[in-house]
Amino acid sequence: MTAVSPLARPFPALPVIAGVTSRVARAGYKDWGRCDLTYIELADGTALAGVFTRNVCCSSEVDLGREAVALGRARALVVNAGNSNAFTGYRGREAVEGIMAQVAAHLGCAPQDVLVSSTGVIGVPLPQDKARAGVAAALAAPPSSWEEAARTIGTTDTFAKGAMARAVVDGRTVTLAGIIKGSGMIAPDMATMLGYVFTDAAVEPAFLQQLLSKTNQRSFSCITVDSDTSTSDTVLAFATGAAGNAPLASYDDAGADAFAAALDAVCLELAQLVVRDGEGAQKFIAITVTGAVSDDSARSVGLAVANSPLVKTAIAGGDANWGRVVMAVGKAGQPADRDRLSIGFGGVWAAREGQPLADYDEDPVAAHLAGQEVTIEVDLGLGEGRATVWTCDLTHGYISINADYRS
Amino acid sequence: MTAVSPLARPFPALPVIAGVTSRVARAGYKDWGRCDLTYIELADGTALAGVFTRNVCCSSEVDLGREAVALGRARALVVNAGNSNAFTGYRGREAVEGIMAQVAAHLGCAPQDVLVSSTGVIGVPLPQDKARAGVAAALAAPPSSWEEAARTIGTTDTFAKGAMARAVVDGRTVTLAGIIKGSGMIAPDMATMLGYVFTDAAVEPAFLQQLLSKTNQRSFSCITVDSDTSTSDTVLAFATGAAGNAPLASYDDAGADAFAAALDAVCLELAQLVVRDGEGAQKFIAITVTGAVSDDSARSVGLAVANSPLVKTAIAGGDANWGRVVMAVGKAGQPADRDRLSIGFGGVWAAREGQPLADYDEDPVAAHLAGQEVTIEVDLGLGEGRATVWTCDLTHGYISINADYRS
Repeated sequence: MTAVSPLARPFPALPVIAGVTSRVARAGYKDWGRCDLTYIELADGTALAGVFTRNVCCSSEVDLGREAVALGRARALVVNAGNSNAFTGYRGREAVEGIMAQVAAHLGCAPQDVLVSSTGVIGVPLPQDKARAGVAAALAAPPSSWEEAARTIGTTDTFAKGAMARAVVDGRTVTLAGIIKGSGMIAPDMATMLGYVFTDAAVEPAFLQQLLSKTNQRSFSCITVDSDTSTSDTVLAFATGAAGNAPLASYDDAGADAFAAALDAVCLELAQLVVRDGEGAQKFIAITVTGAVSDDSARSVGLAVANSPLVKTAIAGGDANWGRVVMAVGKAGQPADRDRLSIGFGGVWAAREGQPLADYDEDPVAAHLAGQEVTIEVDLGLGEGRATVWTCDLTHGYISINADYRS
Repeated sequence: MTAVSPLARPFPALPVIAGVTSRVARAGYKDWGRCDLTYIELADGTALAGVFTRNVCCSSEVDLGREAVALGRARALVVNAGNSNAFTGYRGREAVEGIMAQVAAHLGCAPQDVLVSSTGVIGVPLPQDKARAGVAAALAAPPSSWEEAARTIGTTDTFAKGAMARAVVDGRTVTLAGIIKGSGMIAPDMATMLGYVFTDAAVEPAFLQQLLSKTNQRSFSCITVDSDTSTSDTVLAFATGAAGNAPLASYDDAGADAFAAALDAVCLELAQLVVRDGEGAQKFIAITVTGAVSDDSARSVGLAVANSPLVKTAIAGGDANWGRVVMAVGKAGQPADRDRLSIGFGGVWAAREGQPLADYDEDPVAAHLAGQEVTIEVDLGLGEGRATVWTCDLTHGYISINADYRS
């Protein structure tokens, strides 16, 4: 489990974001020889937006995070790694409220300005003494690098994940930096995704939420490792406004499109990095669906293919098994017509309009599937809807990580 | 792949069903040293009912089967093993119509009285010459045993599967016998389920359909191996009427309840046998959901648990990982309340009403999970809805079967 994913990307050089300071400490939630608590302080007036798991058995952190997002402002973020605090009842909620109160007292802000995320074991209330000492240590720690913060929010992630982008807004260059963790496993927990994007741009909270919700539809909502949905998945965006631009409030504002594109780029890269660290992943798979009745329908079809164990094992085996793709398309519950359906790999059609191609040459497809980056093309032949989703293959590594040890 | 599943059951002693004769032959669809074409002749007037895959990319066999079921009568069934004839366009349909015409000419019946099923490779039209010779050989063959028929419809099934039951209807003992195949794999195909139940009872087609649809909801629709849905899944019921009872036409008829119970028993056993031959299965898992807002909701929650790779790998590893069950319940999209949810294994609660039990003793649970037959209990605490679904664990065997070879 400690081997770095073969699909890993090196951690990029992330810029300082004015108004954002991270510090890390060791709370000792697990028997790890590393920091496990990340504290990020945000300038007064920082705008907040967030998207959360749709799992109805979500953690108190998610409940409280939704309340904070409704208010739209944040002064600090605390991320606990090693204990998800999910399914822990009132004791879990008390632990989160304790962290919020401690940081609020330090900053002189309202408790609801303090966001908390936790990832790790389910069903064990976050130990309040460890959290309190960890937060105190973080508050006293020197500023950390982005890479240290990215490592500290991780659980069994095999590499630190970050992304950045810039845009010109109102004549000023604004900067975005993001970190994410995901697809690692802490028994008995699942692959929680926690992602955070920070920018010095000034953005009104409602518009930041609109942008994050939209980009989420084509980034974090378009990735899957194993179809399972964590009780704690969270993506937050923070805009400090330190760049001094006139606050963006709608798409009509100058630079709004450029900022949206930069946010898209950061979120897409972060989402794909999660897939690149999928448990046991040996291949990175992009599935593009065209010709659907709508973009939403295309995404549903793409996720049905991406979540099919039979498709994922076929790719693991380097097998251009388009019949399994047909099956997955057909079970998606979306409009599809067997006799208009086309399936390809690596840009080569294997079947068109409901029938295998007579002159189909499997050699280039086999060569494509032997690589680490695989594409699957599905054309439904019905309309203009399209989407791309990303996943990884299903390998013995996944089984070993999830079945071959006891909690 | 040839090792018999550790969860296998011996083939039962199935009785002769008056009005039903099976014969097997070798069409040679694959390079197999065994019969691969099953022909079953039915008495004139046999009532027919059927349920089919909801995969919209279904085969011509399924299209034509639906048409036959609408008419409600059958004289013969032909099952081809080794080629599913799915995604083969007009050539595939011609091959099925050829078989129907050939058998109809032999029996002097209408082509639509002849049912055809096929299972195996996708995207290769069923070779008409092999089919024609195979059907001719079957028509000339001596009657076969039920076990021979069950083996012949199989693909990579590791054991032959059958079930029987009796009921008293209208003062006469009627008999039901069924065979099924499933959960085997023929590259590049998926685990198609084909099941057939035969009875000498007289049952009106509309009532037989009503009974089959109902029992399907708690048998075949309550099993899953890997969440993938074949393009060819089919279950047919045939009632020859040779027992001479007054035909059953509604639940008000004497013996209807007894017949329904017998049909339930046969279908439930057949469905569970498919799970027992799930690819790579080492453990048979029954998941009972209670306290749901409805039976349908309970079944959806159960299937979300049964299809969760994280739950299935946990069971494979003998890990009482109730946090993963919580996650799967929460993602099911059904009404659930984290703080009323209880999770157990082998009849022992691990968590009740949203919190782990303080006095939870994992020892008996670990002993339970070490066995081959595992139960998971989920109580939602909301209503009276309940359901049981069945699945198997997710093991290295599944990956090996589906990824470690090339088509």
